[in-house]
Amino acid sequence: MDPGEAARLAAKVHGTDFSKVPQFLDISPEAITAQVHAVNSNCKDDRTKFIFERLITHLHDFVRETSLTTDEWMTAINFLTAVGHKSSDLRSEMILLSDTLGVSSLVEMLNNAKPPNATVGTVLGPFFTNDAHHLQTGESIASEGKGHYMYVEGKILTTKGEPIPGATIDTWESDGDGIYDNQYENRTEPDCRGQLKSEKDGSFAYRAVVPVPYGIPNDGPVASMLGHLGRHIYRPGHLHVRVEAPGYETLITALYFEGDPYVTSDAVFGVRNSLIIKSTVVEDPEVTKARGFLNTSKPHTYLKHDFILPTVQEAEEAKKALKLKLKSHL
Amino acid sequence: MDPGEAARLAAKVHGTDFSKVPQFLDISPEAITAQVHAVNSNCKDDRTKFIFERLITHLHDFVRETSLTTDEWMTAINFLTAVGHKSSDLRSEMILLSDTLGVSSLVEMLNNAKPPNATVGTVLGPFFTNDAHHLQTGESIASEGKGHYMYVEGKILTTKGEPIPGATIDTWESDGDGIYDNQYENRTEPDCRGQLKSEKDGSFAYRAVVPVPYGIPNDGPVASMLGHLGRHIYRPGHLHVRVEAPGYETLITALYFEGDPYVTSDAVFGVRNSLIIKSTVVEDPEVTKARGFLNTSKPHTYLKHDFILPTVQEAEEAKKALKLKLKSHL
Repeated sequence: MDPGEAARLAAKVHGTDFSKVPQFLDISPEAITAQVHAVNSNCKDDRTKFIFERLITHLHDFVRETSLTTDEWMTAINFLTAVGHKSSDLRSEMILLSDTLGVSSLVEMLNNAKPPNATVGTVLGPFFTNDAHHLQTGESIASEGKGHYMYVEGKILTTKGEPIPGATIDTWESDGDGIYDNQYENRTEPDCRGQLKSEKDGSFAYRAVVPVPYGIPNDGPVASMLGHLGRHIYRPGHLHVRVEAPGYETLITALYFEGDPYVTSDAVFGVRNSLIIKSTVVEDPEVTKARGFLNTSKPHTYLKHDFILPTVQEAEEAKKALKLKLKSHL
Repeated sequence: MDPGEAARLAAKVHGTDFSKVPQFLDISPEAITAQVHAVNSNCKDDRTKFIFERLITHLHDFVRETSLTTDEWMTAINFLTAVGHKSSDLRSEMILLSDTLGVSSLVEMLNNAKPPNATVGTVLGPFFTNDAHHLQTGESIASEGKGHYMYVEGKILTTKGEPIPGATIDTWESDGDGIYDNQYENRTEPDCRGQLKSEKDGSFAYRAVVPVPYGIPNDGPVASMLGHLGRHIYRPGHLHVRVEAPGYETLITALYFEGDPYVTSDAVFGVRNSLIIKSTVVEDPEVTKARGFLNTSKPHTYLKHDFILPTVQEAEEAKKALKLKLKSHL
């Protein structure tokens, strides 16, 4: 039997529609990219087709520009497989890879553009929980002894400077050892996290502890990759804040500290210039007492920052403007 | 305590060398790429640094050009994780992903460039084994009943057309059902594969069966991806050939059949234009008998092809020339 005929018979069994496959073959180190595009061109979803067209082009250009060796390709295959194997329902090494290559942070910025005077967002991170205690203004999110005292206050405002009362503020942080409550195996209740509402004048205030730098998981292929790149695995200390108010774009952000030596080399690129805040140290026992700290002889760090929320419509306009700006760069 | 001071104390514990981290922070949808390059710039291996510089640039450009949404990013994370989870020592779904995006084929071409008149290579594939029986010229690699008869012959030649005697030829193929021997659970010995030596005049000949198209594994995320792209999962029928001779560049290749309807849309882009061979059907019982087939009343397919091997030095020169050509495109 003619193998072409044998193949046509086999194809008949498979039910392949040959009116939809490329009619010509052209495979060379340069031409293979167009060949893959041709094979993918029957995709019925235009968005998926566009994404794969860009993906294939960049992947192939990368391989050509680096003249990637067979050994290097195999290293990449084994690395990505190991990243997959290390990922579970409890831990995503694949997200960590995206984080450490700056991809997660870039996706965050592209999808959460804000008007110029609004507070910018940053990555949510893996430590948010839904069970934080509800607090009154001035209460503490951290139990006594979890770290150096910190007092946080500010206002929730519109882009026009008007107060937003009744906004829901979620805030969470590592303790003074750089560990989140849900990283402790014996966690019985939430700590170093809380939920509160802004007052009529948009103000909020709470006690906390000074969050300190901590490392990303150091037992996986991603930490090993950072080692090969001569990078450290640390994030600068930061305080997570999420603000939600009806009619306004929900803000997911974090505050970083001026003077933190990790602020310019965050392992996951979560820092934004405008989120690096200058804090002060308060040593006056009267102020410490008035703010509700138990040990009035200890100094506390004072962090003041207003969060400015755009309306949903203002945020949509900012997102559209960013997309247009990026398109003009193509 | 000043959080900057707290961070410096924590950093001291971590042993971070801050003389090597970027001094300034600049993160925006455009500037983040340079920031990641800056953080990676301490990599001590120039090749690794270059590869990551190109990787980060292409990854970020891809995200910006597509304005990748958070949902699409999450789909990609989940997909790559699933590809890792499906990969095991017995099956690499990650290699299959690379294959179906044309990356494996491109890497193969870049690393195995040949002089213009030499036989081109193609992907080895996952079905090569080391236990094939040794055959004499004219013997069969396939046991009786494994498919339609096929007779293969040709010569192993230098680029100057001179015979290469004593070359080791490994050849393997799917049977008439599109299945390799090592895909059968009850495999007791090798079938549809063999090893033979070229004769003094460089010639070789063996009996085989007509290989037919077969699908890549259809139970994993990669086959699912091909479904979303409107692609089929099939490879055209092909005969694997590997030729090794001292002083010559080892050839890993395969022959495809003119008229096979899958030849322009191979799911893994393994076909090369010059490897598509015109075969004929022989119905003369005398010829069938002379070639050693058991049932002389059956026709057989006749496949004739010479394999031309460059010397190791000729191959090295071709590889260098391709690298220069690709560099000039940058």
